[in-house]
Amino acid sequence: VWRADRPQRGRYREFYQCDVDVVGTKNMIADAECILIAKRVFKELELDVEVEVSNRKVLNGIIKEAGIPEGMVTDVIVTVDKFKKISEGEIEKEFREKGVTTEQMDKLLEIFKFRGSNTDKVEYLKKVLTSDEGKQGVEEMEQVLSYCDGEGVEFNLALARGLAYYTGTVFEIFMKDSEFTSSLGGGGRYNKMIGDFLEGNQEFPAVGISFGLEPITVMLQKQGKITEKKTVTELFVVPIGTVKESVKIVEELRDAGIKAEMDIAGKGVSKNLNYCNALSIPYVLFVGEDELKQGKYKLKDMTSGEEGLLSLDEVRKKLMG
Amino acid sequence: VWRADRPQRGRYREFYQCDVDVVGTKNMIADAECILIAKRVFKELELDVEVEVSNRKVLNGIIKEAGIPEGMVTDVIVTVDKFKKISEGEIEKEFREKGVTTEQMDKLLEIFKFRGSNTDKVEYLKKVLTSDEGKQGVEEMEQVLSYCDGEGVEFNLALARGLAYYTGTVFEIFMKDSEFTSSLGGGGRYNKMIGDFLEGNQEFPAVGISFGLEPITVMLQKQGKITEKKTVTELFVVPIGTVKESVKIVEELRDAGIKAEMDIAGKGVSKNLNYCNALSIPYVLFVGEDELKQGKYKLKDMTSGEEGLLSLDEVRKKLMG
Repeated sequence: VWRADRPQRGRYREFYQCDVDVVGTKNMIADAECILIAKRVFKELELDVEVEVSNRKVLNGIIKEAGIPEGMVTDVIVTVDKFKKISEGEIEKEFREKGVTTEQMDKLLEIFKFRGSNTDKVEYLKKVLTSDEGKQGVEEMEQVLSYCDGEGVEFNLALARGLAYYTGTVFEIFMKDSEFTSSLGGGGRYNKMIGDFLEGNQEFPAVGISFGLEPITVMLQKQGKITEKKTVTELFVVPIGTVKESVKIVEELRDAGIKAEMDIAGKGVSKNLNYCNALSIPYVLFVGEDELKQGKYKLKDMTSGEEGLLSLDEVRKKLMG
Repeated sequence: VWRADRPQRGRYREFYQCDVDVVGTKNMIADAECILIAKRVFKELELDVEVEVSNRKVLNGIIKEAGIPEGMVTDVIVTVDKFKKISEGEIEKEFREKGVTTEQMDKLLEIFKFRGSNTDKVEYLKKVLTSDEGKQGVEEMEQVLSYCDGEGVEFNLALARGLAYYTGTVFEIFMKDSEFTSSLGGGGRYNKMIGDFLEGNQEFPAVGISFGLEPITVMLQKQGKITEKKTVTELFVVPIGTVKESVKIVEELRDAGIKAEMDIAGKGVSKNLNYCNALSIPYVLFVGEDELKQGKYKLKDMTSGEEGLLSLDEVRKKLMG
């Protein structure tokens, strides 16, 4: 993805993401499936995450309930989006600057600060929200949760997600109890976006999820679950006046399934060893005239430093286990 | 790749290719490795191919030897490139139209029509070519062949490859004894291209190979080695008034490694069966209230038409073998 945007520090204009989208149904099962996919993916990756879920209609309903005028809604959402990041004092200051009255603010904070289980929140909102939009949002949330409620899924009333195109369910994935507060992915329902692009009036119901490959990779690296590999090469062949024969030896070893590479630049032995060290290549095989005659080659274990004279068959066995 | 080109019929402006390139060495081992990779890839794919190899300097040497003036070289190469596609009569006609004299043409055809083993061709050209460029080309060919000569590699004196940027070795991969005459891939050495892009004078020796994913896919399909899969879904769950429970069943089956999908559009049974038939989904599981009570579900084998009442555990065993 390339975005003409000014992303915050540590995020980029160009980045990779992996998406799953369901187009063509308004059914909340599709929304729930996106959340279930997220749970499955992070379970597989062994990353302990929380999927925070809400609904844009719920958010609009809450804002309406507090008596915020139509024209201020977007401004207010921008501040709501900061609930986790800044203190309550700062939130209040921002609200005041944007012209939110004390009465409106008290109502907003009262609702957003409600604590309880997902079911408690649904029941609470059913009582509190009076607008059609708000009610519909709660109903959608209730449905989504009926399909995917459980460990790792939390209804977060203040979840906004910055992007304006969401029309219903929204969700965002965070590490549980971690200093890493960036989102690992998220998504939601965007029933109007496709129609808007087509410049017609038709609605194309759609819901999707994006996985952020960069933050996920960072997390996996932090937890030592993946390490950056500099090369896949397992064996490096250094020909000593035996280029033609060495090419054939490399091919034979590749036939046996060994990831073999050879010096094609005609570097000296010590430069080749430096290269192998720098790339953490575990084994080096020296092929000289004498070795060719004997049918045995000097294999150097770069980790232990050990050397030995081995036939190609023995090299194969050693490397392939 | 997207090219601003007018490709011949059956080829496209946008296409996929898979490339391997070695940058930084003039050593002919790199050229040979590209050819060896091609042999390895097509052996793995079980496609019987011939890698035709030549060297742009050899081609220039031959053209020079025939006494073609500098300004006509590109035109002549365009015709040489058609040697396999059109008859000798047509070749002669094209040459004549381009102003090639009878004497020049006789010399060209004499050389191009030389038949023999790769070694014979190298020895023949060593005698015939007198220009420095031609001699250097033959020497490079000899080196490349010393590393990768053998079954499936043929020195084709008339191999030009249309692209102007090749500076040395060129190769192209064709099906052996097949009506399918499109190239499955090819490449060569392009020592000047990178420098040209950088608009400096530095040379960056480079050689690479491209595999044409489209023609390779077509060949594999023709030979029945791959068939187009419409879906990976192995089991389709049809909830009958049991959406909430069905979501959980689908998740359980996925946990067991089964690629399961469920109706999320609330279609009727017969529409769902049509969908499964159209996509060749092998199994359908019906989940009604009664089935839930019994803990046994109706599994329909879409291939045989057989139906049976199975527990989820039995479904798992049946599908996972």
